[in-house]
Amino acid sequence: MLQEPSVDSSGSSFTPLVVMELASDTKQEAIAWLLNRIRDLQQNGGAELLVQQLGPGVGVQEKDNLNIFLVGASWQRLLSGAEDVGLFKEFSDGSMRAFTCANKHEFKDFKGDGDSFLSVAECQYIIKHELDTLRARDETHVPGYTQAKLYPGKSIIRRLQSKGILIQMFPLHEKEELKRLTFSWYKKVKLSLQPLDDIRHYYGEGQALYFGFLEYFTFALVPLALIGVPYYAFDWEDYDKYVVFAVFNLVWCTVILELWKRCSASLAYRWGTLSRKKAFEEPRPGFHGVLGFNPVTGREEPLYPNIKRQLRIYFVSLPFVLLCLYGSLYVMMIYFQMEVWALTVHDEEPTFWTGILLFIPSIIYAVVIEILNLIYRYAAEFLTEWENHRLESSYQNHLVLKVLVFNFFNCFASLFYIAFIMHDMVLLRQSLATLLITSQILNQFMEAFLPYWLQRRRNKKMIRKVQKRRTLEDKELPLVEQVRLEADMSTYLGTFDDYLELFLLFGYVSLFSCVYPLAAVLVVLNNITEVYSDAFKMCHVFKRPFSDPAADIGVWQLAFEAMSVIAVVTNCALIGMSPQVKAYFPDSETQLILWIVAIEHVLLAFKFILTFLIPDVPKPIQIKLARLEFESLEALKKKKMLETSGLSKMVQ
Amino acid sequence: MLQEPSVDSSGSSFTPLVVMELASDTKQEAIAWLLNRIRDLQQNGGAELLVQQLGPGVGVQEKDNLNIFLVGASWQRLLSGAEDVGLFKEFSDGSMRAFTCANKHEFKDFKGDGDSFLSVAECQYIIKHELDTLRARDETHVPGYTQAKLYPGKSIIRRLQSKGILIQMFPLHEKEELKRLTFSWYKKVKLSLQPLDDIRHYYGEGQALYFGFLEYFTFALVPLALIGVPYYAFDWEDYDKYVVFAVFNLVWCTVILELWKRCSASLAYRWGTLSRKKAFEEPRPGFHGVLGFNPVTGREEPLYPNIKRQLRIYFVSLPFVLLCLYGSLYVMMIYFQMEVWALTVHDEEPTFWTGILLFIPSIIYAVVIEILNLIYRYAAEFLTEWENHRLESSYQNHLVLKVLVFNFFNCFASLFYIAFIMHDMVLLRQSLATLLITSQILNQFMEAFLPYWLQRRRNKKMIRKVQKRRTLEDKELPLVEQVRLEADMSTYLGTFDDYLELFLLFGYVSLFSCVYPLAAVLVVLNNITEVYSDAFKMCHVFKRPFSDPAADIGVWQLAFEAMSVIAVVTNCALIGMSPQVKAYFPDSETQLILWIVAIEHVLLAFKFILTFLIPDVPKPIQIKLARLEFESLEALKKKKMLETSGLSKMVQ
Repeated sequence: MLQEPSVDSSGSSFTPLVVMELASDTKQEAIAWLLNRIRDLQQNGGAELLVQQLGPGVGVQEKDNLNIFLVGASWQRLLSGAEDVGLFKEFSDGSMRAFTCANKHEFKDFKGDGDSFLSVAECQYIIKHELDTLRARDETHVPGYTQAKLYPGKSIIRRLQSKGILIQMFPLHEKEELKRLTFSWYKKVKLSLQPLDDIRHYYGEGQALYFGFLEYFTFALVPLALIGVPYYAFDWEDYDKYVVFAVFNLVWCTVILELWKRCSASLAYRWGTLSRKKAFEEPRPGFHGVLGFNPVTGREEPLYPNIKRQLRIYFVSLPFVLLCLYGSLYVMMIYFQMEVWALTVHDEEPTFWTGILLFIPSIIYAVVIEILNLIYRYAAEFLTEWENHRLESSYQNHLVLKVLVFNFFNCFASLFYIAFIMHDMVLLRQSLATLLITSQILNQFMEAFLPYWLQRRRNKKMIRKVQKRRTLEDKELPLVEQVRLEADMSTYLGTFDDYLELFLLFGYVSLFSCVYPLAAVLVVLNNITEVYSDAFKMCHVFKRPFSDPAADIGVWQLAFEAMSVIAVVTNCALIGMSPQVKAYFPDSETQLILWIVAIEHVLLAFKFILTFLIPDVPKPIQIKLARLEFESLEALKKKKMLETSGLSKMVQ
Repeated sequence: MLQEPSVDSSGSSFTPLVVMELASDTKQEAIAWLLNRIRDLQQNGGAELLVQQLGPGVGVQEKDNLNIFLVGASWQRLLSGAEDVGLFKEFSDGSMRAFTCANKHEFKDFKGDGDSFLSVAECQYIIKHELDTLRARDETHVPGYTQAKLYPGKSIIRRLQSKGILIQMFPLHEKEELKRLTFSWYKKVKLSLQPLDDIRHYYGEGQALYFGFLEYFTFALVPLALIGVPYYAFDWEDYDKYVVFAVFNLVWCTVILELWKRCSASLAYRWGTLSRKKAFEEPRPGFHGVLGFNPVTGREEPLYPNIKRQLRIYFVSLPFVLLCLYGSLYVMMIYFQMEVWALTVHDEEPTFWTGILLFIPSIIYAVVIEILNLIYRYAAEFLTEWENHRLESSYQNHLVLKVLVFNFFNCFASLFYIAFIMHDMVLLRQSLATLLITSQILNQFMEAFLPYWLQRRRNKKMIRKVQKRRTLEDKELPLVEQVRLEADMSTYLGTFDDYLELFLLFGYVSLFSCVYPLAAVLVVLNNITEVYSDAFKMCHVFKRPFSDPAADIGVWQLAFEAMSVIAVVTNCALIGMSPQVKAYFPDSETQLILWIVAIEHVLLAFKFILTFLIPDVPKPIQIKLARLEFESLEALKKKKMLETSGLSKMVQ
């Protein structure tokens, strides 16, 4: 790689990619130091990136923050960064390989000096990685901030973030490409699949996998929905047919989850994340502790004893979660009292209005559930933050576990209670339908329309402000205003909430499917609108997120599989409780239960065998991966052979 | 590495390590060609090993095979071979790292020119690997054998094996070391743990892990045995206590299996196999098919369509296995008829002898079970061979699955029948005891004493033969006789049968533990003798096996875990059936069953959560592995940085 410092510092070819917003009262010496470190050569421990301060723009007011910086990089720097992060790109033979600058010309799309080789999302990811791994050398603190301590090897950006000096860092949208993506994604009228490759190109693999999963999940539910419609329409109370439906449902759920793994492996291979090695994980920005030596890296960094964390988890977080579950149970009991009250009112004086009143408790309960989930979510985030996990992945796992358990309990406890303690199938069906529909409507509202409306207000204000100062050439906002506008947009907090929503929907479909076959239809309809609203919010409501090189949907695969195991148990129990099935065993309830338990065990065993039988990675991709590994082994052998013979010749 | 052909060919420092026995009628041109290929330099595609023909010896007779060859190698060759096979050795900082010749002096035990760095077992493994990967160049067939086809890249040794030209290849015992090992292993009188490191040193990791598991399993059963004794001795028919025992048993089984994973990871790390990469797997010697291009390696080699193999598996093997299961069921029914007959005889005329007669059917059945298992084993091997698996691992998996299913069914079907269809707990206990004890005695006999006796006869004959020709300097057999003697020893077929035996014993302990608590005591006693008989047979009955760099007990971990899941189900059912537990629910059997099912589900869920909660690799080893990975990442980064700056300097 050639260093071209002249071009680097002149910034003639500067394309802004990432925005860094520092606090408006940041001391000048800190800013100067930071910019210097970012611009410094890599040999000197710098990041060797280009950085410029954002001009004040026309609409600037006193309260506007002027400490906004645009970060970019030369193409050469980006290519060497791509090698640092271990990016996989398509090789000339069609396989996916880790990009190296040494053989860059053998990659398929590498043309000229490679200025269109990396997508903008990849460039932004590389810049984020380089900034994140910009480390302190011999500084003991951030200049001007004695309390912002540094030690050799500490990530500067993380320290600035945790001390509130760096407010945010986000990648810029590209208006033109976004317009194209918007069009092919959801503005086209004709029915078609989502442009997953384009989504990945613009938002990265994590986002694209979410939308891929959403699409896959929707299609996978279509057969269930189609079968469910006649059951509902003709009110088939014949439980023979229900048994068939439930068994089909259970096997289907297992099969689609297994096939998704294959599907996701294919996507991840095509996108080069399947065999990409995870980068060494940095501590979270908020992680704190006493300085000590990390046993893995040998570097001096804060350590926090695991035992303390365990104590916090088991003696604070766990009791808190249990308390919340109890609270949720309490709310559920209030709901049932309301149900009873509504029923008595309706029974005393049955009119049209009291008929509607019957649905009111469920609707209120559904709204309360959503509110509780939301409050709990904040509490869980606070608690998990307080547990002081060193790695982001560990933080995420603990957060997901907390949120999943509570949400599952909060959403489904009342249904379990109705089904297995009250034995009231009519109420179960009604309650299920109300919960499902209300939560869908609420979610769509909270998730897309509310943020959109807030955003639009801000947007209009900004446009008005700009128009005030400028003549009406408008339409395209100048870069300065664009950056300020995006800086004010909400931050997309990752796919967590989206997956959680799908997870709960999957629960509604699978747990009580044999009671309310229409659930699949409702979920399919919801998912179709979900694609549009999610696409919309990604494109117009939120800041562009940094791409996240995911190879699969991670912990959610496990969550969905756990749900499908629970579904086997509940559905078997529901079938066993149905009067029609009971009629087959008029003499002995024991016989009935033994049969149901036996069938349940067989289904569970079948599930596990299926999981083993269906390989997680499709054969063609297995072969491609094996070939890559074989070639690298052969290359190593050949290299060694050459070295040996070279050495022996030298000795001779 | 320096080439020293002069010393290589003179053979002055020749230590025989591996023996190759060719058929006695092998054509001279084939032998000459083979020896030439083995001795040829690596640059020319040879193996660069030392090889000598075994002398005729004193006791040679006409029927003795003269085509026995001893293979060895120079130390330099062995060290470069160690790098080829990816051997992990202890580094100077105490961590385990892949050995490379480049930094050989930084490894802990590397002294001088490294002639005691590798253990003999490792050397033998390296020689085997080098012979196995000795590939045909442009030969179209083995000289003198037009039907033994070769093609570029085909392993020569595999072809010679599959055509019967190479009869066997085995590593030599070392008398001195074997004596030491024997002494510390089982000849010492004082109680102590097995010398696992020495076993690994002599036999390799696979063997040592088996003995480690045997030891671990025995110790893990001691608490169960200790608790089981009072239950049996005082005849505690109080089922409250049984429930406690059974629950403890189930949790215990889960915990010990999980802890074993950690234990095995520790051992494997210490022995350097934990993070060792699997070598690229060669096709099995017996694999045949039509020549085509392997999609992974791109080499021309036989291919066999997967669909054909699937057809053979599902339309021949599967029906055959089912037929065998039916046969086993049929035999079981005959056993029950015998039981009934014995019981009627005893009831008509109850004497001491008819009392003994009651045990006869169980004993006969136990013997028949062992015989059926043995016959089935051969059939399963034949069928799996016929399925024509390309890789040894795939062959092994299919064989293990076939054998496991049949053995499980054959051994436990009668117990399940007695427990859950006949509901006869007394017969269950008696039958369990008889089956367990008889099969233990039979196994010990078949496995160690019979082969030993046969071996001793051969041994004596050989010694007599030698003594006839020689004067009585005896005691130490000369090398020639030693080699011939070992060539006649039985071949150790791997740990398969040993693990299978442990698996079945585990089944006897866990499946019906709450009915016969003494089972654990019997198994502990058996295991103690098993250690001695297995150690004895390894040292004195069998040829030394090639070491096998295993990192865990592989598919057996899964098998044991599956057994412990089945144990939860059976034990819960047994508890539910006991009259004492039934007495708690005098009114409603349904309530009882629902409770039992609920408890079973909770236990199963608890098992899975435990499996997640207990990490498979102990923390200190996780840290060591992470450090290694971190260092290699850092080294890569530094190397890249140097290259970049070097290049930029060169350009400047």
